[in-house]
Amino acid sequence: MTKESLNLGDNYSSRLTKVRDSIKRKGIDGFLVTDVHNVRYLTGFSGSSGLILITRKETFFVTDFRYKEQAEKEVKGWDIIIGKGDMIKTIKGLSKKTAIKKLGFESSMAYEVFRRLSNIGLSLNAFEGLIERLREIKDVIEINSIREAVGRAETAFLEVKPYMKHGVRERAIALRLEERLKKNGCRQIPFDVIVASGPNSAMPHAKPTERKLNKSDLIIIDWGGEADGYFSDMTRTLLIGGDNVSKKKEIYQIVLKANKSAILKILPGVKSKDIDFSAREVIKRAGYGEFFGHGTGHGIGIQVHELPRITWNKREVIKKDMVFTIEPGIYVPGLGGVRIEDMIIVKSNGHEVMTTLPKELEIIK
Amino acid sequence: MTKESLNLGDNYSSRLTKVRDSIKRKGIDGFLVTDVHNVRYLTGFSGSSGLILITRKETFFVTDFRYKEQAEKEVKGWDIIIGKGDMIKTIKGLSKKTAIKKLGFESSMAYEVFRRLSNIGLSLNAFEGLIERLREIKDVIEINSIREAVGRAETAFLEVKPYMKHGVRERAIALRLEERLKKNGCRQIPFDVIVASGPNSAMPHAKPTERKLNKSDLIIIDWGGEADGYFSDMTRTLLIGGDNVSKKKEIYQIVLKANKSAILKILPGVKSKDIDFSAREVIKRAGYGEFFGHGTGHGIGIQVHELPRITWNKREVIKKDMVFTIEPGIYVPGLGGVRIEDMIIVKSNGHEVMTTLPKELEIIK
Repeated sequence: MTKESLNLGDNYSSRLTKVRDSIKRKGIDGFLVTDVHNVRYLTGFSGSSGLILITRKETFFVTDFRYKEQAEKEVKGWDIIIGKGDMIKTIKGLSKKTAIKKLGFESSMAYEVFRRLSNIGLSLNAFEGLIERLREIKDVIEINSIREAVGRAETAFLEVKPYMKHGVRERAIALRLEERLKKNGCRQIPFDVIVASGPNSAMPHAKPTERKLNKSDLIIIDWGGEADGYFSDMTRTLLIGGDNVSKKKEIYQIVLKANKSAILKILPGVKSKDIDFSAREVIKRAGYGEFFGHGTGHGIGIQVHELPRITWNKREVIKKDMVFTIEPGIYVPGLGGVRIEDMIIVKSNGHEVMTTLPKELEIIK
Repeated sequence: MTKESLNLGDNYSSRLTKVRDSIKRKGIDGFLVTDVHNVRYLTGFSGSSGLILITRKETFFVTDFRYKEQAEKEVKGWDIIIGKGDMIKTIKGLSKKTAIKKLGFESSMAYEVFRRLSNIGLSLNAFEGLIERLREIKDVIEINSIREAVGRAETAFLEVKPYMKHGVRERAIALRLEERLKKNGCRQIPFDVIVASGPNSAMPHAKPTERKLNKSDLIIIDWGGEADGYFSDMTRTLLIGGDNVSKKKEIYQIVLKANKSAILKILPGVKSKDIDFSAREVIKRAGYGEFFGHGTGHGIGIQVHELPRITWNKREVIKKDMVFTIEPGIYVPGLGGVRIEDMIIVKSNGHEVMTTLPKELEIIK
């Protein structure tokens, strides 16, 4: 790729153009973006308090005193407004100044803000997921960052793996993994690392406990990395050697088959529910349907969970340059659970598995 | 305190009673709690996806498959409903079953959920901050947890302090501090540690960079700890010895005076804006008013920022057992900044400063 295509400024302006096109198509005069991740996607602002108002001609970025210097550094080409106290007054002032009458807003906005906005004499239109849908398709810079986030997470895992063995506590493993993620350059940990062993592994969202890894345990490790504000998310399940592990081996192989089966389906044009079906059917046919209650995957980018959702009731059409996880699982209370999660990028005539860690069953001591 | 007063179950039921009293007073049949922190406050559920419906007689906790086992462990005495897909349908089903007609909801709820709820034949009433206001007043268990969170943060700081010196990078200090917080028992880091040196310290919410601490630098360290899901938040500013530090020493002493002056004001019955005024006036009189643009403090508990807000436009009446920060600052672009942040608990006839770290100016090498 050329140097030009890596100019982040160009990317922001192309994102803005897409939003403006929507504004025109929908016949509104302005659009208010309140979701902090969407604000970041459009402006580059990485702070936690800011909103933007896009009109047909102007672009305003509103934040408060605490973020003044940061906004001046990060937000290029926008009018930066430092609000004093009441955000609604600031919006009212701006809409007067720009003669906005019809204002679009994000339906994720709090009801309370909606109610107060209703009182300033504008006609309001809710838009659901407008920017979230733009965010589904990753550009080359985003893909590079995600790739780096995958790499950092994999390196951290491999560094900590020799330490994952009989007698070590779940929490100690999680801590080491987080330390290695940070040491490998992640500025944020996308979510608290999950290390769930033995019966704990039957909880898809378990938190690490003081439990020590034991013989015959299944151990689910679910973690992610970060680069330039973009995240990765992956899961591996290990088995510690011991007695009575045949059932555990069996569910491992079923989940692995479901994971591969779903990935094979991925191609532009297929529907998200069909990818889900492909994994779910493998698990159902093996008799474990009731033990796989969550979706098969989710988009990932500047949030750990974003669009598309790969699940049974979503008919979203898969497109080139979407990035999402595939993570079927089986969770048997008392016995334990298995989840195998990879990150996939959709290519023009297929897909690429971004996760490179092996996923065949590994029995550790 | 007696053993009984430490029974967490009793605390949850007393919180629920307060919400029920409100429901009756407001003449509604049920109340829907969607804010995840409020859900946690009322039920003990520590997962990230769940909502509750409280009627005059029933209590329903709704989550999804991923949190089934966790909910069964954590949420005692509530009917646990595992929703399948559409939350609105689940709420519709529950309100039919319980014959609810007037439903209260939290005004922080997303507009989109409000819009969809409007279509299921209920009369809806928005409530702003009902549970947030209950959360302002901490009970004895909460205060113990916050005290522990303060202790862990202080221990971590003292462990890393010898390392804070000329030539060390901001980011390296932040990483060490986070490591020590975790090692001292914090399961979460409440917010990314701020280490801002030299000109960076002029940004109240700076992120740690690769900049090395230099002679004559002011260094703001803003960090917090956690215990049982409750947070602490504190800031200290250090100065590295060097030339031309007289102005930096001067602003340090002004901020320290502002910090002490605000704390002295704290007593049940005073208004939050008067506490803010007390700090702000010191800074204004010294000629630095324009360089202190944020509020003086904020409540803290299961969120880092909660009620009360100690700022110029809030007339909230301070009450016994509120816990909040006092954190005036002066930020001079180019020169640097100073912030000194303590945590305070309001006592029946005064206050107690929970933070025990010294706050007189310390010049390091």
